[in-house]
Amino acid sequence: MRLDVDPSLDPADYVFVHRIRVRFAETDAMGIVHHGNYPLYLEEARVAYLRALGRPYTELRKDGVDHAVLECFVQYRRPLAFDDEVDVHLVLARTTRASFQLAYLLTVAGEVRAVAATAHGAVDASGRPTRLPPWLIDLGPTRATGHAAR
Amino acid sequence: MRLDVDPSLDPADYVFVHRIRVRFAETDAMGIVHHGNYPLYLEEARVAYLRALGRPYTELRKDGVDHAVLECFVQYRRPLAFDDEVDVHLVLARTTRASFQLAYLLTVAGEVRAVAATAHGAVDASGRPTRLPPWLIDLGPTRATGHAAR
Amino acid sequence: MRLDVDPSLDPADYVFVHRIRVRFAETDAMGIVHHGNYPLYLEEARVAYLRALGRPYTELRKDGVDHAVLECFVQYRRPLAFDDEVDVHLVLARTTRASFQLAYLLTVAGEVRAVAATAHGAVDASGRPTRLPPWLIDLGPTRATGHAAR
Amino acid sequence: MRLDVDPSLDPADYVFVHRIRVRFAETDAMGIVHHGNYPLYLEEARVAYLRALGRPYTELRKDGVDHAVLECFVQYRRPLAFDDEVDVHLVLARTTRASFQLAYLLTVAGEVRAVAATAHGAVDASGRPTRLPPWLIDLGPTRATGHAAR
Repeated sequence: MRLDVDPSLDPADYVFVHRIRVRFAETDAMGIVHHGNYPLYLEEARVAYLRALGRPYTELRKDGVDHAVLECFVQYRRPLAFDDEVDVHLVLARTTRASFQLAYLLTVAGEVRAVAATAHGAVDASGRPTRLPPWLIDLGPTRATGHAAR
Repeated sequence: MRLDVDPSLDPADYVFVHRIRVRFAETDAMGIVHHGNYPLYLEEARVAYLRALGRPYTELRKDGVDHAVLECFVQYRRPLAFDDEVDVHLVLARTTRASFQLAYLLTVAGEVRAVAATAHGAVDASGRPTRLPPWLIDLGPTRATGHAAR
Repeated sequence: MRLDVDPSLDPADYVFVHRIRVRFAETDAMGIVHHGNYPLYLEEARVAYLRALGRPYTELRKDGVDHAVLECFVQYRRPLAFDDEVDVHLVLARTTRASFQLAYLLTVAGEVRAVAATAHGAVDASGRPTRLPPWLIDLGPTRATGHAAR
Repeated sequence: MRLDVDPSLDPADYVFVHRIRVRFAETDAMGIVHHGNYPLYLEEARVAYLRALGRPYTELRKDGVDHAVLECFVQYRRPLAFDDEVDVHLVLARTTRASFQLAYLLTVAGEVRAVAATAHGAVDASGRPTRLPPWLIDLGPTRATGHAAR
């Protein structure tokens, strides 16, 4: 496993937050959000983060650099329900020359629901690994992700 | 509305059947399959039909001809549940030079659960309407779709 | 088919609008939003409409009245792309004692992308058809849906 | 992180295999299967495994014991494409009194595409942790998961 970040349970350890309202279609017969939908929330938050940075994903893709997902980890701590307003907190937690890791904390009204982490690699138009753009490396791990999730 | 087919409730009016088992992820908090998942079942059945005809969709796409979905209609008659084995019956119900319509009947153990219809247009690599391939026109409406769904 | 509404192409014929940003996960290998995702957009808009009316769906469900989807129709006119901000316009177009129909218009920056319609029936906790709540009937078809989509 | 299994890259280290054909709807604008769909493949394989064991999930749920997903990890090694026939290999890799872990290997025509692991907890009808059923514990880790994925 490449992922070695330990997502903090403290929102203060994250630099960005994006709110998502749970769709009814995202629930399952257990009456809660199906676990398979969390990666969609993480992705929506990443896209919103890039947009907030002035680096929209649509432009990155035009430059021929894509960010393939290499690994994804989610820890489900308390369920999410239909219509919940989920705050997806996010921080860039690791960077190397060709890959980076993000840590996530999902809360509803301040209450922890899940933590997650994703690892990404920069790939060129032909799908081969390439260097991260300098601005992304400069973004660096802006903050230690303090408290361990476990 | 372009769709003018009236999907029959009689499986005998269809020329192809494809079985799909309902995934748990496809259910929602009402305990049944979310209505938004039915188009995925229809598409899986279409792809299976083309494969059975010896015209796999992957090859069609290589030829630069795609079949854009122009319209989709679903009538939900009785719910589908997790683990149901759904028989998706299908028939080519209309063809013109550049478009075609399919009718569908969804049953579980012979019991009607839904009917549906889709309209498709052939488009070239740049997304412009183009002629249907001759083999598809020849496939024609092989059979009248007898009994009306209503 | 129960659906008999003809969704207008003029935003002025709708009473409510809800904006949705397309997720990357909602695209497919044709590079556009997969047609199967449109029902999710319609549902999100319906839920937002009920919330705006002060009748949140979560409360309706507590009252033991659910609104089963009976039919769903979508006409795809121009594709949606990743990151598009889609305005889902909505109007209550028909009501009977136990069912109602909604018409939808999807636009991006004022340009028409799709129209749709859904038919719903009120069902009680055991899934049996029941009367619509009076406030919903009173909401009535507030406006003729003028210009035909075709 | 609770997950401590290291999914093997060798199919021989798994006890069960379930084949899934990729739906077109599961692809994204990068032309490959969206990473968020892998948990659905894992779940479909788990359900098929329980069925093969004579312990269908539908019956487990009737007994009031559910298997909440506590954690999910996926490592994407090579992309999956539309129409790929994916073999999802699976093995029960850890059991405790109230939880278990599964390891997965995804291959296409024998070629490794992804590895994954999930952790599950038994919960009763009210969502509280409860003991695993004895037959599941007895199933035990039937085999060491030898070769490390890394």
